[in-house]
Amino acid sequence: MQTYPGVQALVRRTHEERVLQVLREQGALSRNQIARAVGLSRTTLSEITGSLLQRGAIVVTDTDAAHREGSGRPAERLALDPASGQFMGVDFGHRRVHVIVADASHEIVASGSDRYDDHVDWPTRLDVAFRLVERLSDEYGVHYGALQGVGIGIPGPYSGKPGVRDYPSHRAAADGFHEASVDEAFCERFGAPVVVDNNTRLAALAEAIFGAKAIEHLLYVRLSDGVGGGLVVGGRLVSGSAGLAGELGHVTVRADGDPCRCGKNGCLETIASVPAILAACRAAGLPVESLDDLAAAVARSHPVADRILRDASAAVGRVLAAVAMALNPAEIVIGGEITRLAPVIVQQAAATVAYELFPGAASPGVRAAHLADDDGALGALAAVFHSSPLLAGYPETQIRGVVDGRHQ
Amino acid sequence: MQTYPGVQALVRRTHEERVLQVLREQGALSRNQIARAVGLSRTTLSEITGSLLQRGAIVVTDTDAAHREGSGRPAERLALDPASGQFMGVDFGHRRVHVIVADASHEIVASGSDRYDDHVDWPTRLDVAFRLVERLSDEYGVHYGALQGVGIGIPGPYSGKPGVRDYPSHRAAADGFHEASVDEAFCERFGAPVVVDNNTRLAALAEAIFGAKAIEHLLYVRLSDGVGGGLVVGGRLVSGSAGLAGELGHVTVRADGDPCRCGKNGCLETIASVPAILAACRAAGLPVESLDDLAAAVARSHPVADRILRDASAAVGRVLAAVAMALNPAEIVIGGEITRLAPVIVQQAAATVAYELFPGAASPGVRAAHLADDDGALGALAAVFHSSPLLAGYPETQIRGVVDGRHQ
Repeated sequence: MQTYPGVQALVRRTHEERVLQVLREQGALSRNQIARAVGLSRTTLSEITGSLLQRGAIVVTDTDAAHREGSGRPAERLALDPASGQFMGVDFGHRRVHVIVADASHEIVASGSDRYDDHVDWPTRLDVAFRLVERLSDEYGVHYGALQGVGIGIPGPYSGKPGVRDYPSHRAAADGFHEASVDEAFCERFGAPVVVDNNTRLAALAEAIFGAKAIEHLLYVRLSDGVGGGLVVGGRLVSGSAGLAGELGHVTVRADGDPCRCGKNGCLETIASVPAILAACRAAGLPVESLDDLAAAVARSHPVADRILRDASAAVGRVLAAVAMALNPAEIVIGGEITRLAPVIVQQAAATVAYELFPGAASPGVRAAHLADDDGALGALAAVFHSSPLLAGYPETQIRGVVDGRHQ
Repeated sequence: MQTYPGVQALVRRTHEERVLQVLREQGALSRNQIARAVGLSRTTLSEITGSLLQRGAIVVTDTDAAHREGSGRPAERLALDPASGQFMGVDFGHRRVHVIVADASHEIVASGSDRYDDHVDWPTRLDVAFRLVERLSDEYGVHYGALQGVGIGIPGPYSGKPGVRDYPSHRAAADGFHEASVDEAFCERFGAPVVVDNNTRLAALAEAIFGAKAIEHLLYVRLSDGVGGGLVVGGRLVSGSAGLAGELGHVTVRADGDPCRCGKNGCLETIASVPAILAACRAAGLPVESLDDLAAAVARSHPVADRILRDASAAVGRVLAAVAMALNPAEIVIGGEITRLAPVIVQQAAATVAYELFPGAASPGVRAAHLADDDGALGALAAVFHSSPLLAGYPETQIRGVVDGRHQ
């Protein structure tokens, strides 16, 4: 009968996660205690703990001689290594890379960023990122032998196939290095599964899963230098047939509007991006050059700023409503620093969405993003948490049920 | 350790499907031959074939005495019962119910419909449906003991939780019978898993899976008495957070347009539904009362009909493009009888979509629906095929891998 390496990797990783979880919850335990707690045979458990010890995810703390009843050789007790990075989130921006590392408890144990010049090539960016990763190791004393996964956000549409890669990659050597090879570079460097996606989409995922309760259906838009977005449908991040899902900035909202860089006229981005909003204010006689200027105008309730922000936000609301009519999300989230400076944006967009949506239907909540723009690495980390153990979006009970079922 | 009834049911059903598939492909076989072909132990296989024989899905045809080498007691040979209905599709319309039954080869072995009065209650509709099911059994000689699943399409938003129900249902007794209890009635009657969803959404699923190659990301709109739609994202039909996904008819396309029955103005439905198109033609002096009249005007290239159809289709195209920008589908499908009578609808909508979508991106194909409006039961059947074995949208290799993995 054919074997399925992916399934075996899944089972191995799921066992590892269960062992780590028990140690996280109960502290140091002997192998026998772990085996009983996770319901694995001694033989299987020894393989798992051997691999985890070798990779530095767990350490031997002491023996159970002190707590032991009866006779026999004292057993080693195992515990999580608090300095072991288990998850890594990497956010490549246009001008800097940000890396965060979380331990087995999902606590962040290291964080840092480094700049590079705008438009440098990908090998250079990777070089900066890898040096940053080493520096974090020195600074925070973390090590990476036990990495369970790496999440990577990149700007712009991701031209590789989004999703989880397990190590080793089965793809042929890339013909010419480009951003689609980022996953392979990290796979090879850390020997761990890698998830890569567009960083605006990863922000959408983070908004969906970092709340008190995970949101199964969420629509996200970010107002920034451009306008982008992302969708979570049925608990899964949507990348679309060609990795282009979430391009809300280029929905036409005024057919006779200003020319857009995409070649059409009146795209949402020509009305609701930060540069478009600042330009509209200046055209109306309000001299704002920066977000700070705009924030000052908003703070003193300048009517021109208010009108232009309301117009832009109503346009955002109409686009969100059209997509929400199709998707019926539970929550709509608006991100971008400007939404923090000008609360009128979320207020007006929420009012427009409430009007536009089917009367009688429960309208989705419209709220400002929890995560700031420079929290992209958190979004990447969310992708790893979400994908682990390699089954993004599968119902939790299914994963657990299937895996438990194998050992009944 | 906790057990998971859902997983056991999945495994049993998957075994059944594999046995049925082997018999479908290879004809009559002995139990030993089946056990070897599907890789199950004799004991497990005997349970499976016992259950299939008891339910009438398979029959004993003869013994292998004629083909046998060596000595020993001749073994029975088993084969599919061609008169056994394995899958049922049911489409409840406003005024009639349509039922089709397919055998293990997915060939349709029975089909029929019966009318009921508009607005009769659900117990009456169910009564008509069940009597139709019995009549089909008599007329076509099919029996239902081996049903693997029932798909049911209903008009309007589905107020139950869409998805697969396995028998027995774990829901509490319904407080007052309504359409959300349709699934329970069929579960109890046939002892088989039931999938219920809105019939326009099921049509979207059918368009996605009944082509030469299944489409993972598809956007569907239907122009009829109203305008509705459905989405397939990542191979899964989207129902949304409250079962309202796909309501494309109420996206605003002209803020100062005609009042819509939903309370807003200028919804797509006020421009592109069949009654809206006929009314617009009459207002422009073209006396059309029916789709036939409109078809006649289109056939002689009447400029008023052409202009109104193009305007309506451009509006459809703009809404489709906005949603496609968010979802990046591989294919956009336009359904409804009117699209067959007036090819200009798909032509104009395709042109509008091509213009609106992000230049440089591969534009999705825009095409007319393969299935006609009264093919709703096929959509319901598609839902059953798609959900079997109980894991809608899960990658095929995962299902097969996990299940094979259990028996390595």
